[in-house]
Amino acid sequence: MKTQVAIIGAGPSGLLLGQLLAKQGIENVIIERVSGEYVLGRIRAGVLEQGMVDLLREADVAERMDREGEVHTGVELAINDKRIRIALDELTGGDTVMVYGQTEVTRDLMQARQDSGLTTYYEASDVELHDVKTDSPYVTFQYQGEQVRLDCDFIAGCDGFHGVSRKTIPDTVKTEYERVYPFGWLGLLSDTKPAHEELIYCKTDRGFALASMRSQTRSRYYIQVPLTDKVEDWSDEAFWTELKLRLPKDVADKMETGPSIEKSIAPLRSFVCEPMQYGNLFLVGDAAHIVPPTGAKGLNLAASDVSTLYKVLTRVYQDNDRSCIDQYSAICLRRVWHGERFSWWMTNMMHDFGDVAVNGTDNETFSKFMTSELDYFTSTEEGRRVIAKQYVGLPYEDLKD
Amino acid sequence: MKTQVAIIGAGPSGLLLGQLLAKQGIENVIIERVSGEYVLGRIRAGVLEQGMVDLLREADVAERMDREGEVHTGVELAINDKRIRIALDELTGGDTVMVYGQTEVTRDLMQARQDSGLTTYYEASDVELHDVKTDSPYVTFQYQGEQVRLDCDFIAGCDGFHGVSRKTIPDTVKTEYERVYPFGWLGLLSDTKPAHEELIYCKTDRGFALASMRSQTRSRYYIQVPLTDKVEDWSDEAFWTELKLRLPKDVADKMETGPSIEKSIAPLRSFVCEPMQYGNLFLVGDAAHIVPPTGAKGLNLAASDVSTLYKVLTRVYQDNDRSCIDQYSAICLRRVWHGERFSWWMTNMMHDFGDVAVNGTDNETFSKFMTSELDYFTSTEEGRRVIAKQYVGLPYEDLKD
Repeated sequence: MKTQVAIIGAGPSGLLLGQLLAKQGIENVIIERVSGEYVLGRIRAGVLEQGMVDLLREADVAERMDREGEVHTGVELAINDKRIRIALDELTGGDTVMVYGQTEVTRDLMQARQDSGLTTYYEASDVELHDVKTDSPYVTFQYQGEQVRLDCDFIAGCDGFHGVSRKTIPDTVKTEYERVYPFGWLGLLSDTKPAHEELIYCKTDRGFALASMRSQTRSRYYIQVPLTDKVEDWSDEAFWTELKLRLPKDVADKMETGPSIEKSIAPLRSFVCEPMQYGNLFLVGDAAHIVPPTGAKGLNLAASDVSTLYKVLTRVYQDNDRSCIDQYSAICLRRVWHGERFSWWMTNMMHDFGDVAVNGTDNETFSKFMTSELDYFTSTEEGRRVIAKQYVGLPYEDLKD
Repeated sequence: MKTQVAIIGAGPSGLLLGQLLAKQGIENVIIERVSGEYVLGRIRAGVLEQGMVDLLREADVAERMDREGEVHTGVELAINDKRIRIALDELTGGDTVMVYGQTEVTRDLMQARQDSGLTTYYEASDVELHDVKTDSPYVTFQYQGEQVRLDCDFIAGCDGFHGVSRKTIPDTVKTEYERVYPFGWLGLLSDTKPAHEELIYCKTDRGFALASMRSQTRSRYYIQVPLTDKVEDWSDEAFWTELKLRLPKDVADKMETGPSIEKSIAPLRSFVCEPMQYGNLFLVGDAAHIVPPTGAKGLNLAASDVSTLYKVLTRVYQDNDRSCIDQYSAICLRRVWHGERFSWWMTNMMHDFGDVAVNGTDNETFSKFMTSELDYFTSTEEGRRVIAKQYVGLPYEDLKD
């Protein structure tokens, strides 16, 4: 079997890339390790940058998002009971973010792929990438009891942090950068009215909390917990009690609670693999980089990688110009590091690091720096602008001529 | 002997405070451990914020500064050979900095104090502060072989990091925050034309360098060196050779070199003592806080402490209102932490941390974050504004009514 672009992974990155390529007449096949239902079951981010919104529109998969998604013109930071609104639109010259769950984005993309009749192999096992440094790479995998070989021109590794794509790049040619944080996020999803119409990131003496939402009837809340905590330790009631102690009092007092639909603990990690390409293999999204969720950059960074790879492959096939291939990694990495840095900074500023030494110094001193950082960046216009510009997302970079 | 305010230390903070108080008719006596010549021999900062310039004018000691000092409307950051100018005036709505050496500020203040006939005890030893928690504190010291007792209403501790004032506050009521950096600055002063008309802070693969100046004929240069280096290891020639490798090439190529007047290695430290007051004792400047020199905040933070203490004592004596006394520490500390944070941030961003782990992560990852930080803050207008606003100095805060 042969295609132009083999896409490893049917998460939002792989599906979006496939959709965009198909629109340009570029053949592609997606190979996914698990089932479609399993992919949809993953509860992830829900805040889309303007750039990603535009890209979904370009891919013709934005109809439901534009109908059901909610445009947010601001986001709040709360320091104990003091609330500061970051007016995204005013501070950025009109940019906003769209609240629309990753699950919904994935569902729309799956539907579009199904409608277009493009090939997707779900539940493919033993996926292996071969000859990626040559002009004739290929992918092998087991599908419904048979061994399949897919020949292609390029491979897009959209298979996440644990996927095979990054592992295919030899250790001798890649460098991996990592920061693991000394706490996790306990998240709860519930069919309740959101506590507030905009997101509130809360720094409190009891630790971080985030009041977020997926829609007017579905809320997503998070609280910082020690890495030693287990989700079984947290009843819904215990979660709501702790959450209310961390939200601004006026918000907590009138918030709606209810049974959890989903509840899980996620560790926080910053991770980048350099370079993001190896021969004709390109890493996209989580396969190359992970951010802590503070600032909602994970899915958005994946989207900007997709945008860059889409531009590269379009130029390759339409202009028969392979010279742009080598631009992929550098263009992606600059924006990736900006997103990594923003997420790291927000994480540092908003969390309680306990007794763990940070920044080469004791936590008490680091904590004082972060308190001052939050004070400066929320109490000055130039500071709020720095938050806003990065929260709505830095511009996508074009290919060089 | 009796006075209203006993000032410990005849550096620029103590002298400026004494001058300002005298202008309001508030009696003060300064007690200094070393000689006036020794004080003048200390080579320190040379960049004055707008707020300090205004304060020196208010103290009537600005005549020579206004004649000989140089107003800088910009400062440069260089990343290897890439130069970025931060247009201070344009980015801040007209604010600038004044280049005028701390030695010259001190000289002008000493002259003014001598002219006004106010009492200063130089070379006073065994200085001790007594009963600072009571309404009748006093200072004792040895002067020319005699034991002197100075009764007063208030004591201003302007005696630096190693002085007696901070040590007088019991450990049980104070908290000290500290970060010591894994490198030092080797500084060289020479009577040569400055390499460039504005300061250049250089981040290079060989480490940090700063091209600074005191006047059109006197230059001050610094290079980051390991803490294990000794000043004897560095001939003038070796210094100039290394400096030229770290300055942007076009600047290095045409720079003037010459014999050193002074050459020394300073360690870099961030330090804050909280609170900055204890009864009727107030800590001012280095007695309470130290910053690394990156960003030139040390003297300027001392000046804002002086400004706050001057306002407090003026209200106490003119309005007979002691209620404002307790505001001193909190007002100072907010601005102090902003200066500490800015200096720490500039230090983190501009230096090479070698193999030392920083921010709870390996240095390679931290270094990547800092490269991205410098990229973001120099390549965007909102970023440059954040640098500029802090470089010219955040506003002085007023007393509450």
